Amino acid sequence: MIDDNGALRVHRRAFAQLSALALSAAAVGGLSTKSVPAGAQAQSSDAFARLRDKPIDIGILIFPDMDQIDFTGPFEVLSRLPDTKLHVIGTQSGSFRDHRGLVLTPDVALAGAPQLDLLQVPGGPGQQAQMANEPVLAFIRRHMAAGKPLFSVCTGALICGAAGILKGRRATTHWASFDLLPYFGAIPVDERVVIDGNLVSAAGITSGIDGALVVAELLRGKAVAEAIQLDIQYAPEPPFHSGTPKTAPSSVLSTVTAAYHPLTEARLSTARAVAAKLGIASPL
Amino acid sequence: MIDDNGALRVHRRAFAQLSALALSAAAVGGLSTKSVPAGAQAQSSDAFARLRDKPIDIGILIFPDMDQIDFTGPFEVLSRLPDTKLHVIGTQSGSFRDHRGLVLTPDVALAGAPQLDLLQVPGGPGQQAQMANEPVLAFIRRHMAAGKPLFSVCTGALICGAAGILKGRRATTHWASFDLLPYFGAIPVDERVVIDGNLVSAAGITSGIDGALVVAELLRGKAVAEAIQLDIQYAPEPPFHSGTPKTAPSSVLSTVTAAYHPLTEARLSTARAVAAKLGIASPL
Repeated sequence: MIDDNGALRVHRRAFAQLSALALSAAAVGGLSTKSVPAGAQAQSSDAFARLRDKPIDIGILIFPDMDQIDFTGPFEVLSRLPDTKLHVIGTQSGSFRDHRGLVLTPDVALAGAPQLDLLQVPGGPGQQAQMANEPVLAFIRRHMAAGKPLFSVCTGALICGAAGILKGRRATTHWASFDLLPYFGAIPVDERVVIDGNLVSAAGITSGIDGALVVAELLRGKAVAEAIQLDIQYAPEPPFHSGTPKTAPSSVLSTVTAAYHPLTEARLSTARAVAAKLGIASPL
Repeated sequence: MIDDNGALRVHRRAFAQLSALALSAAAVGGLSTKSVPAGAQAQSSDAFARLRDKPIDIGILIFPDMDQIDFTGPFEVLSRLPDTKLHVIGTQSGSFRDHRGLVLTPDVALAGAPQLDLLQVPGGPGQQAQMANEPVLAFIRRHMAAGKPLFSVCTGALICGAAGILKGRRATTHWASFDLLPYFGAIPVDERVVIDGNLVSAAGITSGIDGALVVAELLRGKAVAEAIQLDIQYAPEPPFHSGTPKTAPSSVLSTVTAAYHPLTEARLSTARAVAAKLGIASPL
């Protein structure tokens, strides 16, 4: 009755159709920037525009003790882009765990990474170690030096900052690390998704889904991004009003801030060291 | 300068603090059901209430060709619950890929699964094969027969339907499979998160995050759930209005519906066979 392989084949054909249909819809519709979130700092970027009609390779960097949804949220969106290969790139080969224990497995280690058109850099507590991982920083630096699009999620921005690529760039990060952005020479913008030329940054953790939909539009047009949003039924209804420091009840904010304190202090210490290395006057 | 192990230790301590603080905040605050999403069918459930103050084991079932965020979305929330062990349970041992290619690795295979207090069942195209996987269906049946809480996400509801546990229960699933619910004897409720006693169901894919926050409140109280929401900065800003069939542009809806058609037909065929087996008159 149920043919596993058959069902899978049907499904893959269905998604190939979706990709083809969505792509042609996008080709008809053209690029719209109207839907960039209110307040996001929209700038036209040749870096995205020049990828619009060509096959692309996207890489997502993963590392131990990261926050898995900084990666799996964008994966859910970007893996549905037509004419795109998605590479899960590990800072090390083999499996490791995210900071809550999820097993993560890269397709390829950094040393074997292919040429990428777009690089996504997620965050999470393990970002501390990556800020001192010179091959990772060099990889990010080379990507940006080539003028290619980069998509930072959560405290992935701190890794980018340690690579020195945020100097003079508008960016955002997780709310508990937001005040650290000036240590990297970045201009902090308190929005969920910030676009600055070839750099798109998303705020904390789950904002990577919103950021990935913005990136999807920049790469493949609004119709494709809307088709992906419908496919993944992304019409969120958070049951509480507690998603940001501004909206959370004050008792909840103080509880979470206190819990973050040791990590925030460690990150501040790292940011100060990076600022000294980059020759940026400490802002605080 | 950067001590990886040190940073990690700090972090784990920080989250232990968060758990402890959030738990005590919850103990003070008591259970509130006010925040259950408007329209969600709230029912008091002893099944959740009796877990409120005890250590619990949560299991998430994963399987080949599933949709990864049906699992990783709830994982992000549930892995932060205080006094909770989270077990990633595979329908088979070893790693496999989700339907877009993400490598997934269970902690334990079904045969070795521990006693669970809450079971989460995700969906995705691979659900077709699981609807004929008798050990999986028996596992779900036994869990429900014991009156324990079950949390279904997306087309995980179809697996639950094949297990026969949706008879007479209000439930939801992914929009493209919503009309199939009556084949399992379920009462379809077109809401993002539906609570029916010990059964919580979430609609398509990303709705698992909203559903998991509702489950978090039911298990550990509103203050804990709000602290998790703030931690993961869940204040979504979808860049388009295309997350449901009602809001998506008609051209986008017809594109995605057409792309889903072969899979929808296969699922309909499976649902009819299940209805016959369960002795439910086919509703269409």
